[in-house]
Amino acid sequence: MTEERLMDKIIDVCLRRGFISPAAEIYGGVGGFYEYGPLGTLMMQKIIDLWRQIFVLDDDRVYEIAGSVLLPESVFQASGHLDSFEDPQVQCKSCKSMFRADEIISDAVNIKAEGLPLEELDKIVEDNNIKCQKCQGDLDKAKQFNLMFKAEVGSTGGINAYLRPETAQNIFINFKRLAGFMRNKLPFGIAQVGSAFRNEISPRNFILRVREFQQMEIEMFYDPDKENEHEHYEEIREIEVNLVTREMQEKGWTKPLKITIEEGLEKKHIPNQYMAFFMAMETEMLKVLGIPEDVFWFRHMQDHEAPHYSAGNYDLEVDLSIGHMEIIGNALRTDYDLQKHAKASGTSYEIVADNKKIVPHVAEPSLGVGRILYAILEKCYQDDGRGWTWFKFPSTIAPLEVAVFPLMKKDGLAEYAYDLHHDLKDAGYLSFYDVSGKIGKRYARADEIGIPYCVTIDYDSLKEGSVTIRDRDTMKQIRVPVEDLEVVIGELSEGEAKFEEFGDFLP
Amino acid sequence: MTEERLMDKIIDVCLRRGFISPAAEIYGGVGGFYEYGPLGTLMMQKIIDLWRQIFVLDDDRVYEIAGSVLLPESVFQASGHLDSFEDPQVQCKSCKSMFRADEIISDAVNIKAEGLPLEELDKIVEDNNIKCQKCQGDLDKAKQFNLMFKAEVGSTGGINAYLRPETAQNIFINFKRLAGFMRNKLPFGIAQVGSAFRNEISPRNFILRVREFQQMEIEMFYDPDKENEHEHYEEIREIEVNLVTREMQEKGWTKPLKITIEEGLEKKHIPNQYMAFFMAMETEMLKVLGIPEDVFWFRHMQDHEAPHYSAGNYDLEVDLSIGHMEIIGNALRTDYDLQKHAKASGTSYEIVADNKKIVPHVAEPSLGVGRILYAILEKCYQDDGRGWTWFKFPSTIAPLEVAVFPLMKKDGLAEYAYDLHHDLKDAGYLSFYDVSGKIGKRYARADEIGIPYCVTIDYDSLKEGSVTIRDRDTMKQIRVPVEDLEVVIGELSEGEAKFEEFGDFLP
Repeated sequence: MTEERLMDKIIDVCLRRGFISPAAEIYGGVGGFYEYGPLGTLMMQKIIDLWRQIFVLDDDRVYEIAGSVLLPESVFQASGHLDSFEDPQVQCKSCKSMFRADEIISDAVNIKAEGLPLEELDKIVEDNNIKCQKCQGDLDKAKQFNLMFKAEVGSTGGINAYLRPETAQNIFINFKRLAGFMRNKLPFGIAQVGSAFRNEISPRNFILRVREFQQMEIEMFYDPDKENEHEHYEEIREIEVNLVTREMQEKGWTKPLKITIEEGLEKKHIPNQYMAFFMAMETEMLKVLGIPEDVFWFRHMQDHEAPHYSAGNYDLEVDLSIGHMEIIGNALRTDYDLQKHAKASGTSYEIVADNKKIVPHVAEPSLGVGRILYAILEKCYQDDGRGWTWFKFPSTIAPLEVAVFPLMKKDGLAEYAYDLHHDLKDAGYLSFYDVSGKIGKRYARADEIGIPYCVTIDYDSLKEGSVTIRDRDTMKQIRVPVEDLEVVIGELSEGEAKFEEFGDFLP
Repeated sequence: MTEERLMDKIIDVCLRRGFISPAAEIYGGVGGFYEYGPLGTLMMQKIIDLWRQIFVLDDDRVYEIAGSVLLPESVFQASGHLDSFEDPQVQCKSCKSMFRADEIISDAVNIKAEGLPLEELDKIVEDNNIKCQKCQGDLDKAKQFNLMFKAEVGSTGGINAYLRPETAQNIFINFKRLAGFMRNKLPFGIAQVGSAFRNEISPRNFILRVREFQQMEIEMFYDPDKENEHEHYEEIREIEVNLVTREMQEKGWTKPLKITIEEGLEKKHIPNQYMAFFMAMETEMLKVLGIPEDVFWFRHMQDHEAPHYSAGNYDLEVDLSIGHMEIIGNALRTDYDLQKHAKASGTSYEIVADNKKIVPHVAEPSLGVGRILYAILEKCYQDDGRGWTWFKFPSTIAPLEVAVFPLMKKDGLAEYAYDLHHDLKDAGYLSFYDVSGKIGKRYARADEIGIPYCVTIDYDSLKEGSVTIRDRDTMKQIRVPVEDLEVVIGELSEGEAKFEEFGDFLP
């Protein structure tokens, strides 16, 4: 299987089976906008729910807010986005196509050009004689292009506003009230899930580089003098994470460094306990979601790669078929944003901590829901080479968790199965009832969308009160008493029991 | 208490206690944009979760999608929004202020002018000598103003796009794929929760008329020949709803008509079983959320009030302190949108039903999350007249469900209470731990944000293993063994037991 083809296969399943499709597809679509269909939405909700449980609900010091998507210019003037949130673009002199300068370079000559100044980009284009990807025409000089979408609020002579390019700014501009809610005591974190928008010059790679996306962010405010006094440090100290240090990047690396949080802090590979906490819990979260830990790592980004507000970024990158892809960014934003907004608005953002007045520092994990979802799709995709494909989703992320099939429609089998399906739903499982087509075809359809377990009701079910459970990954089957079904599905779904523990496999 | 003052009091609590505050407040804000703080967000999530459970998860034929917020012009050209989604505005000739024409009229002379043609609006303004609300200057003639926010996608010479004014359009433009997912069988429903945007001429009344808001919508597709064959009709037949018919509006009405769904259908007050289902379940949902059924009704809107796509709108209106306010709209959209998009895109939207090809009809419940939240706040607000205020939220909607207080910090009380708080959290309750200040002050703070039950740990707790539970609404207290706490809180929260059933009140 070539690399391109894996993404294409996944796109094909996504389109056909209700995961994801281009927005406004019947009108030809617009690059970088997607719709999440029924199954994609269920998965997205599961990712958000798991993140919320781990990072918000389980932590007494973290609360979630829901801020406005459209914000006035003053916010982005202060935050620096109006001046600095931009990418270099080059235009073809002949066909007028636009390209992101660093990308047309890396596509052509494999030079990492992200974050380089315009003159250097121009020089690389010239030195390597790089041409338009569409018509082979000459390229004009690189220019900066601001990535924010602008909209006017009000009728005549309204005010300029922008769609937020990150959810974070809502939190910074509302810091005073939020600190008040937390009784002005550090540390505390404010979380947010929501849409963010970036007018990407060249959206690409399906849902990986898009113009509208869902972010899950936390701004964790702490006293920099206490950056190594995280409340939950003891719980994460021994967790192992994969790291790619700056030193490794300079020397060239093939395999990330596997290291405990404690050792990472000691060796200064991880800057402080707040960053360490997020790196540890993100590692745990991705594993639960079905992304094996040997395919992702935290890379300490180079200075020129990091955003304008960052004093250190640790990107969680996944080894995908199209290359290494950031799916989570962890940024040390220091007091950059709070200072900017305090100054621009004339508001005091100082908090009293240990009898001194400080503006807190910020550690920010920023997770892209769509990118995480894509990584799950790719890492769970299975193909037996004979036309049978499936997603080996763990139940934690499977959009549907169990399917119920009557062998036939007649003789009361359908009614029996339908009732069973509703019992499973009432017990909280995402159950799917399917009565049409041959049983083999129903299995194939269920496998293709990654339903972990199929329950079949046959004539013996009516006679003996037992049902068949089929395991998606092994295609093996067991027979269990119907009254045990919920418990068995529960234990299997939560990984508390293995399939074979419930009896012999059927022939 | 005058009517204005109730909204002001609620705004005051919302600002001070982390429910809701203006967006970009430190920069002076922009009319019609709000941020939901920690408590407002928890409530918003509870409203969405309850709606999702009732209307989506409990129904095998309804799935949820998550579509793009920014959509290309072609979508709104076809849907009619580009031409018809507008409000009449008048400008002051002197100070250039803008007003919504029907509102400046109803403010001045109490004439319901919504939906009237421009000439009639001009005539009313002239006849009644209505002046600018700000400077008493003369008003110019009324003009139509399109309420959609525009943004350009792409760099130079990009394409025009609009922030969706309703979530519904994502569903209509993706109908073919969604119908395929539902195996092209009617009926089926597609739900969506998300942001919608309207560039209101004069946003007003806190979160009731805003420019950015959260909608929960379902497009229910059915065969119009089977509009009275709803799968769940038997379950809702006997539910009573409050109605205000067109006839009642013509004659003048003081009290809505209370009627069962069955009778409403027989008497043609309700157009079909699909609309009836939504009206019944919305009634049930609001009651669970703490809005008593005697303060809301479904009003059959007049033709000139209904949106351009509607063949009949039944607005759920609540009697609020500022007047009657629509918080849910139920629209019979017929095949209007599907036909428009099928034609404009050249896509076939026909489905085979009973051996005939049809374009399905649509019933659409459209719920405003913020408006429902405001109605709950107002209907639950309590004031004893002596400075003690509280929200009598049912636990279903309370942002925090239980508070745990150690009487003192010392002697192990704090540790004991903190562990208990975490036990409650682990059991799934939104628990809040508070150790600072006198106990009476902690009760007052908890009451003000509507925490139903406060659990206090004192010296007897350590000795005897019992704790005090205080009921917010009656301020009465009972003493229960600590091992029963979770069960008692559970039964109280779910309304399965009354407070006094757990023992005598403490003196």
